[in-house]
Amino acid sequence: MDAFNLHLENLPRTIALSTDGEAVLRYIDQRVLPQSLVIAQATHWEEVVDAIDTLSVRGAPALGIAGVGALTLWAQDAQRRALDGKAYEEELSQVAEAIASVRPTAVNLRWGIERALNEVGGLAATEGAAAVTQALSQLTCRLIEEDEAANRAIGRNGAALLEPGSRILTHCNAGSLATAFYGTALGIIYSAAAQGKIERVYADETRPVGQGARLTAWELTQAGVPVTLLCDNMAASLMAQGQVDAVIVGADRIAANGDTANKIGTYGLAVLAQYHSIPFYVAAPSSTVDATLKDGSAIVIEQRPPSEVAPDPLPGMDVWNPAFDVTPTQLISAIITQNGVFSPSAIGASL
Amino acid sequence: MDAFNLHLENLPRTIALSTDGEAVLRYIDQRVLPQSLVIAQATHWEEVVDAIDTLSVRGAPALGIAGVGALTLWAQDAQRRALDGKAYEEELSQVAEAIASVRPTAVNLRWGIERALNEVGGLAATEGAAAVTQALSQLTCRLIEEDEAANRAIGRNGAALLEPGSRILTHCNAGSLATAFYGTALGIIYSAAAQGKIERVYADETRPVGQGARLTAWELTQAGVPVTLLCDNMAASLMAQGQVDAVIVGADRIAANGDTANKIGTYGLAVLAQYHSIPFYVAAPSSTVDATLKDGSAIVIEQRPPSEVAPDPLPGMDVWNPAFDVTPTQLISAIITQNGVFSPSAIGASL
Repeated sequence: MDAFNLHLENLPRTIALSTDGEAVLRYIDQRVLPQSLVIAQATHWEEVVDAIDTLSVRGAPALGIAGVGALTLWAQDAQRRALDGKAYEEELSQVAEAIASVRPTAVNLRWGIERALNEVGGLAATEGAAAVTQALSQLTCRLIEEDEAANRAIGRNGAALLEPGSRILTHCNAGSLATAFYGTALGIIYSAAAQGKIERVYADETRPVGQGARLTAWELTQAGVPVTLLCDNMAASLMAQGQVDAVIVGADRIAANGDTANKIGTYGLAVLAQYHSIPFYVAAPSSTVDATLKDGSAIVIEQRPPSEVAPDPLPGMDVWNPAFDVTPTQLISAIITQNGVFSPSAIGASL
Repeated sequence: MDAFNLHLENLPRTIALSTDGEAVLRYIDQRVLPQSLVIAQATHWEEVVDAIDTLSVRGAPALGIAGVGALTLWAQDAQRRALDGKAYEEELSQVAEAIASVRPTAVNLRWGIERALNEVGGLAATEGAAAVTQALSQLTCRLIEEDEAANRAIGRNGAALLEPGSRILTHCNAGSLATAFYGTALGIIYSAAAQGKIERVYADETRPVGQGARLTAWELTQAGVPVTLLCDNMAASLMAQGQVDAVIVGADRIAANGDTANKIGTYGLAVLAQYHSIPFYVAAPSSTVDATLKDGSAIVIEQRPPSEVAPDPLPGMDVWNPAFDVTPTQLISAIITQNGVFSPSAIGASL
């Protein structure tokens, strides 16, 4: 195993809110990576909704931040328009719902919006619209700080589970690009790499959007972590050859019993990991746990456009394009949050 | 279930040898499907080798025919060049080896070449070069006829295993395009469809070359069979939802104990099928059985260029691109050949 140096300083921040002067939400446009590193700048909430819808911003933790950032941009606009009290509250709740419902599976989007509404509900009437804008702006910045701190704690907690020389398979991108900074699944890899425990990361391509091929591979090469790209259908062979010491993935929503929704393909990997006696870890902040759901059966799976799979479909052909699947709790070795390492079935009670 | 009409007449022949006048090998260029249906015409054996190497012609049964077709084109050329006896035999054996080794995993390529050499070894010395050309030309045509007959028998044998309303998942293309005509795995589907037993076929995309998305989906829509395309990593979810009644795949080489090399991703599907208690069938002519191999451990797995996975690779990133994997015999419910339905472990003894 060749040692390598970790270069986290080469990873740009995924999302940030400028607050001197006009509020501007800046985020990496993940549709054009790795060909181009473009920082998009939004000043209107609907631009952010579009960015979320088109996967320019993606990843459950980043979506929680982006949603509150979008609401902040709305508040700035509403303040300028000097809406009256009732119209203000009505529009706030409409816009909040519009943002929260762009993508149904990742719970963090709605979690962020609900946290925002709890903080500013009725505030316009008592303190004025400027106070709402300021509160939301501060909340966005606080979420970014909290997210990075949570990811670093997830990293420490997860790295403790890994042995030196670990070869890790991951799926999709649960990296710095899926969060404000550092990442969840990849946060564990960064933390373990800093301890000299990582030999190599295997990145599933992650069809149809290619978050593994485009984002995880880019992020890991930027950070200096040895990475091998493979097609999703090659993971089973890699496991059979004894090349995988652990599978680590992120999560979009975790039910109280540990059933976990994540990028399509995660469930299959979990079955394969169990068959090959390889530990299967889920890494996520506690905000991804949806304790209102007893189990995963009620998780809504977002269906994405067929054009993602087949840009030029054949006449008469159907396309199936679910964006997520649900991995049952019994296939998960542990769920790793900022609060510790949990048995999946105990994750709801851990909150 | 809506009834549908099968239109096999819309499927072109995959490979043919014209024998009036100059021998010309015609084959569908499978690199440009489904955008264009191009029939390539080769008059020199090295064009066919290039076509095999670049996957213009692919599929184990079709490779067996293409190899003998290529040798026929060589014989035509050697006859014109009026090589002397020793030079003729030496070049024959060199060219035969060059053809047989273009792709190492599919056994049919070497099987076809060996059958050809058995037929024409020493014939040039006794009967002349023209006799060799004629014998190889006739053998190519006979292989084409035998292949279609075998596929139709595989179809009948396999269809008997399926219930009405069957929803079949397949991987890669083991269809008419992988054979002279009709197909192996898809031959079973055509035969079952003619009996009204098929509700729908689910076609795995089959990264990185996309034989499922480009070839199977095209072939099935041409034939009028309802088909849904999905990404490879979605198959597990489809199974979990109870949408798959059987998995049927082809084979590139089957060891005596039933271990089966087939397109990368097949092994993972077999694990997933077992986990979901779904029958997993392998369909292949008996020529795909390599009785010289006790088990699959000695099967050479062809590694393909990284550019197939990542045309524009990131600096510092590795790519793993094995073209095949080996499914162990215990994960296979049955192997279906033109001779019947076999327990995988008995396949070597069935020859």
